[in-house]
Amino acid sequence: MTYDLVVIGSGPGGYDAAVEAAGHGLKVALVEKQNLGGTCLNRGCIPTKLWLGATSAIDELHNQAKMKVASGEVNVDFTTLQGRVQKHLTGTRKAMTMQLKKIGIDLVEGFGKLAGDNEVTVETAGTTQTLKYKNLVVATGSKPIFFPGLEPDGDCVLDSDMFLAMETMPTSLIVVGAGFIGLEMAQVAHRFGAKITVIDAMDRVAPLEDPEVSKALRSVFKRWKWDIQLEKRVSGVKTVDGKAVLTFDSGEKLEADKVLVAVGRGPVTDGLGLEEAGVALQFGQIQVNENLEAATGIYAIGDANGIIQLAHAASHQAHYVAARVAGKTDAPYESGPVPSVLYGAPEVMRVGRMENEVFLSDADCETSRSQLAANPMAQAHAATQGFVKVIWSGNKVAGVTAIGHDVSRLTTPATIMVQQGWTIEDVRKTIFPHPSLDEALLNALKTERKKTE
Amino acid sequence: MTYDLVVIGSGPGGYDAAVEAAGHGLKVALVEKQNLGGTCLNRGCIPTKLWLGATSAIDELHNQAKMKVASGEVNVDFTTLQGRVQKHLTGTRKAMTMQLKKIGIDLVEGFGKLAGDNEVTVETAGTTQTLKYKNLVVATGSKPIFFPGLEPDGDCVLDSDMFLAMETMPTSLIVVGAGFIGLEMAQVAHRFGAKITVIDAMDRVAPLEDPEVSKALRSVFKRWKWDIQLEKRVSGVKTVDGKAVLTFDSGEKLEADKVLVAVGRGPVTDGLGLEEAGVALQFGQIQVNENLEAATGIYAIGDANGIIQLAHAASHQAHYVAARVAGKTDAPYESGPVPSVLYGAPEVMRVGRMENEVFLSDADCETSRSQLAANPMAQAHAATQGFVKVIWSGNKVAGVTAIGHDVSRLTTPATIMVQQGWTIEDVRKTIFPHPSLDEALLNALKTERKKTE
Repeated sequence: MTYDLVVIGSGPGGYDAAVEAAGHGLKVALVEKQNLGGTCLNRGCIPTKLWLGATSAIDELHNQAKMKVASGEVNVDFTTLQGRVQKHLTGTRKAMTMQLKKIGIDLVEGFGKLAGDNEVTVETAGTTQTLKYKNLVVATGSKPIFFPGLEPDGDCVLDSDMFLAMETMPTSLIVVGAGFIGLEMAQVAHRFGAKITVIDAMDRVAPLEDPEVSKALRSVFKRWKWDIQLEKRVSGVKTVDGKAVLTFDSGEKLEADKVLVAVGRGPVTDGLGLEEAGVALQFGQIQVNENLEAATGIYAIGDANGIIQLAHAASHQAHYVAARVAGKTDAPYESGPVPSVLYGAPEVMRVGRMENEVFLSDADCETSRSQLAANPMAQAHAATQGFVKVIWSGNKVAGVTAIGHDVSRLTTPATIMVQQGWTIEDVRKTIFPHPSLDEALLNALKTERKKTE
Repeated sequence: MTYDLVVIGSGPGGYDAAVEAAGHGLKVALVEKQNLGGTCLNRGCIPTKLWLGATSAIDELHNQAKMKVASGEVNVDFTTLQGRVQKHLTGTRKAMTMQLKKIGIDLVEGFGKLAGDNEVTVETAGTTQTLKYKNLVVATGSKPIFFPGLEPDGDCVLDSDMFLAMETMPTSLIVVGAGFIGLEMAQVAHRFGAKITVIDAMDRVAPLEDPEVSKALRSVFKRWKWDIQLEKRVSGVKTVDGKAVLTFDSGEKLEADKVLVAVGRGPVTDGLGLEEAGVALQFGQIQVNENLEAATGIYAIGDANGIIQLAHAASHQAHYVAARVAGKTDAPYESGPVPSVLYGAPEVMRVGRMENEVFLSDADCETSRSQLAANPMAQAHAATQGFVKVIWSGNKVAGVTAIGHDVSRLTTPATIMVQQGWTIEDVRKTIFPHPSLDEALLNALKTERKKTE
């Protein structure tokens, strides 16, 4: 038998590609070497959000207590929480398995590898199975990367996979890498009372975001008494007598219960037989054309192609590839704006262009903004720090960035506005609910715009 | 001097009309008899949301405690909270006053009344001032209404104004009227530990919503051990020996610390000289034409015209009338979909058509839905009850209704979708952030649709 489609990897990209292709009537096999759901479900976004959700009362209480409105104490039992996380993941994987069975997708467990001749071999527990395909989707995702000397040892030096699998929360934590992954995890540890140190080689936290967002985040972390060490290079981390010892290039040392190394993620493309199949790799990333094709009949989606490391981008690529393989489209892939979100408190959202990049390519740009302090919902949660900033290009919304309480809720409307290139007239036609945090976006849109030099 | 525009009432409608008209270069006076901001700011949405926000940790803790993930106690000090609410309201009014001054609007304090001849008289502390106008906007809002025998006495029988001004939270509360106002306030009292009874003459709570939403809400309230008494008529309520005593038509009696009467709101249009000026009233509501005009040069917006009792609808009408008076439009008023939101936990949102009404007018309708239990953000907050329901008409999104944790965040995207009449292709083009509660809407949109009989 020859499958219409074989998919390697069952993260958000691979799973969605398989399910959607089957929905188009194709015969599909899905190959997974570990757990259904990939990094996002098992070792990434989902467990982190379960941690953040479970501890949100701590943050809400803290804010109201600062205003002397509330008092009390919230204790989260980390062991019970971890049990609940596992239960949720197991339940979700079970639901996914049932879904695959229901729609007739063959789930093949084991390590999938391109074997030439439109074949994939799947090794599992000593046996090898061969799957013939007409089309292949490589959706093998990504894994944490490290600089020399920062390799995790699974004892006191952890990567994000290990961090999420911990049995107790450390009382002190050093996070190397001030990106979204490190910052969300640090925030959870902070809620559990850990002393936090964040180190980055760049001159700001969240270095991919608008510099004003980095500044606002840093001021929050300072209020939380985090030790933020920027423009610092780490030469090594290791476990010494049950403690993590970190050494800077300068020779200076820091000690903590645990070190989380979160300096980035790289594609999982080694040993898959990709190059032998005519697929080009660059820094391990699968090079694809405008149809997300890496070679004839071989597509690559999600973190493995390195276009953008976000689950929802992978799902969107999956939707396209499934339609393409099913003969429903031969147009090139169009992504549209891909939003990104930092969860927790404060939250950060961004979609489209940023102020610090927009002016490089476009002289006709303006910004407008609102402060969260003027918003009654931010006031209600005693979390009034933050702002919403809109980037305009040619009198159309080209980007939105926000930081503060609950700003993740601005993401979907802002994504639609950027995608459609809203004018102020489009804004005016739409009735935003009152009161709502959404009105912080509305006010930013309505406010006087400023040209930036 | 003759004003281009005189506005009576400074709630969301009146204030916005004044500010926007001034923005168009008009000379404007704003008349307010009590407090800037009207009901919404001073005695309505805003204080209620400040109460809900301040007590949200109680609800978050409760949910996690049920899963044994968290333990502890959160106590909100009602006196401090009330102080903070007043501080917020004072600050907001002050900012509004400064804004009016800055843009050159004359704020005239006192009771404004039409006096014929394009004049408004404003009475304040025994003196009368006359304002000449070219155009008038009546934005006098609404106030609680009562059935005979249910009039509040300010002692143990309260309307929503009095309830929001309380100095202590009652330990038991009867709410007469299961609409959004009563339910939000009952929820706050519940968080403070009050024993709650809700009475309505209809056969369901939130009777304006989709019947499935009413059912879901009722099951939540039952879990909270609220006493829900439906299809019950109340003949009277009064204070007896420092307790509220309520009598049903059946003669049966109920007793509580306080009774909140929240059976509806009616327009504030008495004694304004409206009929003398040729303005038609029906049930006290100012009758307007398609331009929101009640008589030549006299406009009515917001709760006073009775079209829809929501602050954001008033603001949207204000925007139109300001543009019209400034000569920027002579097209009739178009509202677009007006969303409504119940805040708290669970939340309810609705925009566009509802399943129980859509089929009356349109045979070509379908529904699709998703359950919140499948959403990781709902799971993270241990609040998985609820659903999102999409109403389709002619393969376009015609309405969205949702109930559950944080569903208010679906409101703005859903409003845009209904307004634009999204097809499934529009949905597919848009990248929703993962993970997010927004994906509950996405899943409802993507799911198989069902025709309803």
